[in-house]
Amino acid sequence: MAGSSYGNIFRITTWGESHGKGIGVVVDGCPAGLPLCEEDIQKYLDRRKPGQSKFTTQRNETDTVEILSGIFEGRTTGTPISMLVWNKDQHSKDYSEIASYYRPGHADLGFDTKYGFRDYRGGGRSSGRETIGRVAGGAIAAKLLEQMGITFFTYSKSIGPVSVNPDRFDASVINDNPLYMPDSTAAAEATAYLEECLKASNSSGGIIECIIKGLPVGLGDPVFEKLDANLAKAILSIGAVKGFEIGDGFDVAKATGLSNNDAFITADGQIHKASNHSGGTLGGMSDGAPIIFRAAVKPTPSIAATQHTVNRDGEDIEINIKGRHDPIIVPRAVVVVESMAAITILDALLSNMTAKLDRIIDFYQK
Amino acid sequence: MAGSSYGNIFRITTWGESHGKGIGVVVDGCPAGLPLCEEDIQKYLDRRKPGQSKFTTQRNETDTVEILSGIFEGRTTGTPISMLVWNKDQHSKDYSEIASYYRPGHADLGFDTKYGFRDYRGGGRSSGRETIGRVAGGAIAAKLLEQMGITFFTYSKSIGPVSVNPDRFDASVINDNPLYMPDSTAAAEATAYLEECLKASNSSGGIIECIIKGLPVGLGDPVFEKLDANLAKAILSIGAVKGFEIGDGFDVAKATGLSNNDAFITADGQIHKASNHSGGTLGGMSDGAPIIFRAAVKPTPSIAATQHTVNRDGEDIEINIKGRHDPIIVPRAVVVVESMAAITILDALLSNMTAKLDRIIDFYQK
Amino acid sequence: MAGSSYGNIFRITTWGESHGKGIGVVVDGCPAGLPLCEEDIQKYLDRRKPGQSKFTTQRNETDTVEILSGIFEGRTTGTPISMLVWNKDQHSKDYSEIASYYRPGHADLGFDTKYGFRDYRGGGRSSGRETIGRVAGGAIAAKLLEQMGITFFTYSKSIGPVSVNPDRFDASVINDNPLYMPDSTAAAEATAYLEECLKASNSSGGIIECIIKGLPVGLGDPVFEKLDANLAKAILSIGAVKGFEIGDGFDVAKATGLSNNDAFITADGQIHKASNHSGGTLGGMSDGAPIIFRAAVKPTPSIAATQHTVNRDGEDIEINIKGRHDPIIVPRAVVVVESMAAITILDALLSNMTAKLDRIIDFYQK
Amino acid sequence: MAGSSYGNIFRITTWGESHGKGIGVVVDGCPAGLPLCEEDIQKYLDRRKPGQSKFTTQRNETDTVEILSGIFEGRTTGTPISMLVWNKDQHSKDYSEIASYYRPGHADLGFDTKYGFRDYRGGGRSSGRETIGRVAGGAIAAKLLEQMGITFFTYSKSIGPVSVNPDRFDASVINDNPLYMPDSTAAAEATAYLEECLKASNSSGGIIECIIKGLPVGLGDPVFEKLDANLAKAILSIGAVKGFEIGDGFDVAKATGLSNNDAFITADGQIHKASNHSGGTLGGMSDGAPIIFRAAVKPTPSIAATQHTVNRDGEDIEINIKGRHDPIIVPRAVVVVESMAAITILDALLSNMTAKLDRIIDFYQK
Repeated sequence: MAGSSYGNIFRITTWGESHGKGIGVVVDGCPAGLPLCEEDIQKYLDRRKPGQSKFTTQRNETDTVEILSGIFEGRTTGTPISMLVWNKDQHSKDYSEIASYYRPGHADLGFDTKYGFRDYRGGGRSSGRETIGRVAGGAIAAKLLEQMGITFFTYSKSIGPVSVNPDRFDASVINDNPLYMPDSTAAAEATAYLEECLKASNSSGGIIECIIKGLPVGLGDPVFEKLDANLAKAILSIGAVKGFEIGDGFDVAKATGLSNNDAFITADGQIHKASNHSGGTLGGMSDGAPIIFRAAVKPTPSIAATQHTVNRDGEDIEINIKGRHDPIIVPRAVVVVESMAAITILDALLSNMTAKLDRIIDFYQK
Repeated sequence: MAGSSYGNIFRITTWGESHGKGIGVVVDGCPAGLPLCEEDIQKYLDRRKPGQSKFTTQRNETDTVEILSGIFEGRTTGTPISMLVWNKDQHSKDYSEIASYYRPGHADLGFDTKYGFRDYRGGGRSSGRETIGRVAGGAIAAKLLEQMGITFFTYSKSIGPVSVNPDRFDASVINDNPLYMPDSTAAAEATAYLEECLKASNSSGGIIECIIKGLPVGLGDPVFEKLDANLAKAILSIGAVKGFEIGDGFDVAKATGLSNNDAFITADGQIHKASNHSGGTLGGMSDGAPIIFRAAVKPTPSIAATQHTVNRDGEDIEINIKGRHDPIIVPRAVVVVESMAAITILDALLSNMTAKLDRIIDFYQK
Repeated sequence: MAGSSYGNIFRITTWGESHGKGIGVVVDGCPAGLPLCEEDIQKYLDRRKPGQSKFTTQRNETDTVEILSGIFEGRTTGTPISMLVWNKDQHSKDYSEIASYYRPGHADLGFDTKYGFRDYRGGGRSSGRETIGRVAGGAIAAKLLEQMGITFFTYSKSIGPVSVNPDRFDASVINDNPLYMPDSTAAAEATAYLEECLKASNSSGGIIECIIKGLPVGLGDPVFEKLDANLAKAILSIGAVKGFEIGDGFDVAKATGLSNNDAFITADGQIHKASNHSGGTLGGMSDGAPIIFRAAVKPTPSIAATQHTVNRDGEDIEINIKGRHDPIIVPRAVVVVESMAAITILDALLSNMTAKLDRIIDFYQK
Repeated sequence: MAGSSYGNIFRITTWGESHGKGIGVVVDGCPAGLPLCEEDIQKYLDRRKPGQSKFTTQRNETDTVEILSGIFEGRTTGTPISMLVWNKDQHSKDYSEIASYYRPGHADLGFDTKYGFRDYRGGGRSSGRETIGRVAGGAIAAKLLEQMGITFFTYSKSIGPVSVNPDRFDASVINDNPLYMPDSTAAAEATAYLEECLKASNSSGGIIECIIKGLPVGLGDPVFEKLDANLAKAILSIGAVKGFEIGDGFDVAKATGLSNNDAFITADGQIHKASNHSGGTLGGMSDGAPIIFRAAVKPTPSIAATQHTVNRDGEDIEINIKGRHDPIIVPRAVVVVESMAAITILDALLSNMTAKLDRIIDFYQK
């Protein structure tokens, strides 16, 4: 099936493999009139760039984006925006070894079974580089949403056993550490933990949290197109994500109706919620409170330590995966999570415009 | 947006409100030739029926399904299967009170904001009765999958603080208690806990686990249509679900690559995984191991205890929601989770048939 | 594939066979707040009702519609509108003969090959009764569009060799004859022609024209979702339609740029076109002039005259199809064409709301 | 709306403007294992290349395609195939004049109204160059279909008043004339006619016919996804096409059931049709006979002759559109029609694989 598109009204279609000629995305359905230039995209892409710390791969990838269509005189035209990042080192390595076996924690066996063979160079289509297209698309969605007062704050909430301490939470320090943790102490502890992982040829998982503010009430549809259902799909579609929760998430299992319900109150002449256990959605629609969700990210499956696996001939073997691999996916996935959330929110915002007849009549009478 | 459909090749479209004339579903894209009768559907619907224990509402709803189309001489014809359950007591109650305010934990405010008004009788479209259509559709998907050797086991894993003990896990007792717990001791403890909740006019959350066996390797697409991403959407689209995790789920955050990777091994001339931390998917495709996922279900938001809220005039008020309400959603949601999973798996199974050219050529040469 | 849905934002899903329990449709994505009752639908359905003249089948079908969901206090709620028409005479006839062979001009062979067998009673899913769902959906779309000043005029332009004479065109007489011809003289001639067809156990084709007024400029998308492309699909999806043309249609083949281009002019401070060769669309978007398109409808394939065909055992046979069959499909298809056009136009109107950023910002700031 | 994608299982997404950096397409859902190289695509693109005769623009466009992804070791991998053609002369011309007014027969007014402004350089997104993406996608679909024995023959059936004479029809001469007419005499006459048009600063319309052989019975779905309905959409989505007909098309209006029905007969142990008035589809499904359809193409709207129009300030003006413009669109559109047909047929072929349960079970048991 054509599975490389995401979104309905605002839709991205990504393409490209780790070691092919390049990686790209076509953004279709973007409203006309948004000021947009390559710098807007590059800023976002740089947040997922490798080589920024010792915990991200030292590959020399500049990942410079080129916009090929859809912009005229500095603004989006309503036609598809094609963006491309050339791959720098397509032929830099001998992948024949990886080609011969199935790496634990990777999709190699699935690809071979489903398609008959696979582009094994650097993970091919299932490489983390695939997310470049998502982030380029997300940069546009986020810029558009910003113009409507909708903002995102996404960060590493935990890395291995180290979590951000709510009492030390300081959004302003998030860019002071390469781990994107809004807590300098936790960042230092996580750094120490990751150094241990590296020494042991091992890797670590973690949790990403995303907070979205400024949404109007009522985004999302009541049944299958619930806002949280679409966020869940968007986030689980990111490689290595194994869980999604919104608001109190899995903690609701032990909660009661009295502790979990958010009371509505009136303040400043407007209806608010006194708490936000729901994480900003009720019945699949935004409820006026910030959207708060979390993603569980598994440890990088490519590790240098010895692992058992099977080769294509069905023989049991021991392997050590060579090459430079991040001991942690979380920091680079932060902007990917934000991008997928931005696309999802924008799509819901556009979809919501046709919900009420009087607003539609009003729209066309102007 | 048209948000009442789910699935791509095998697609359900549900309709109906809690107190309208009825609830129904149109199942489109069902392959021709599946033996199907109303009993096949009814068996599934009966698993979500209220009135089976003191913890589910005592409403006299028989929920008898009628098949209106798509079957000829006892088999599906490939044309849409329309199914309908009439609502029994449409006018049984005065809902004018509920109409006047926004219930905490419910979608009332969202509906009013999005659509301008709402069918407030019994929750209208956001009632749990909406799931009748899902379950009727899921029954068909599950029956078809069973013919291909794919089976589901879905159960209440925890209710409030009480969890199924893995050492006592016994699939055969799941229907011996109305809570659908495969552990009689846990069921007894959960029963006691729910009785306390009832006395306190309160309610409880819980966790549902679903285990799917018999899937071929390679179902799901590598990027946005990952099998786990679609399962996440399917499950989060069920009202009251606040979290989804697959395999080790949120525990991966504290895991390492070495502990989390599943080694491939050869046994009986076939490739297997030595463990199943992944929960049956790698890179978005089924990996041959059982799919194992969990859903976090919030406590029933409708409780008899006094709550604070706001009425439609923006005044702060205290309310006590009258009527018979389940103190726990989990047991009745078990079959809904299974139904949404079955539809998702079947859709992936059908979609997967076009992945390889040689199989397509083979198909048409027969 | 799930092929029983049409439309994107405003979407209908039809179900039902000629001799099953009933025929129905689920209309999803209808904006909230439209006053709607069963009479609104019935008025439309009555236009396709058989038994109105000697040229339509004398079956005693009242085709009374029931609305099952989506309406509250007389207005649409934004949730799916399910509508149902019960079939009256499900078991009235012995179809075993038809079951045994492939009727010329019918889909029997296609059904058997594709699905392995077919519901042969009265044509099953490919019966003209399938259009009941389309018309019920179209009635809603047309009512909504009427509130926005968009109107439809659809009529039989030709029947066999008899065409409406433009000089005698009189919209007011369209309902004075059962053929829906806005020209009483042509209607009389067509009546005589059809009587000959009947005597010869034969049938006749014809052409339907649809004129849509009041559209704003810019509906439709410039590439694959062109307004005329979607109209073409909508109209060709009606059984028996073999051609679609817009504006000058096939006559453009012999035209020149000078004769075919419509000059823009200014009148009353607004931009107009001096002519309408384009039929109301340019580059796939509405151009402010009325939409004018035509559908070519083939003669009823079921005729009483002797025909040659093949039975399911592959033997060549001669058949005479029994039963009451309209000698002409055109008059009853007029409202089906209008319905499909209305759904297509409404969908384009809703889709168009997200084209420009400043209008979106404006929408949400109110 | 995201309107730049076409197809469901096999889906193309096109992007690019006439004078932007380039034009491209992403082909998603292509089955894995198809041998494919740039030459396969180039061959198709060359059929729409300008500069091949005096009737196509003399622009120096080589239109060389680059494949950027989705191919590994010479075969498709099942992942998206991104293809790109760079634009050569982006800045070659002053378009400020065209920017100021609305060209008759063009979409300028629609773009300005819908999006607020437009990329006016060379027609922007509504330029004929947009079809490069369609043809690149169609080349892949056609190559895959060829492997299954499905072939296309597409040609100019008429140009202005000159039609191919069925008695002189000779497929082998189609490439001997730049008009793609399979009749050398008609080609010579059409050439003379086009020379007259050119002298008069005028242009001509025409008709394209496409014949598809080798289809299995049963492709297409019985209701909204009829094979002919999707072909109609595909063909009307091509700029300048104003009509579509299949089989006898508009001639059915004057036909009778007896003359229009195709008798089924048995020959060589197989069921055939004795004639092909239907053009290869019955009830929306392929009927085993060749698919035959026609597209009506309007005259090139850009002509050098003086035309009346309105400028952006609403003033009436006279214009002469400068630049090199083809006096006829038809010959270059032949391969575009074939491409859109190939994509539509392939999508129906893939979709059809899930119609029957026993075939599905069979598929997975191998």
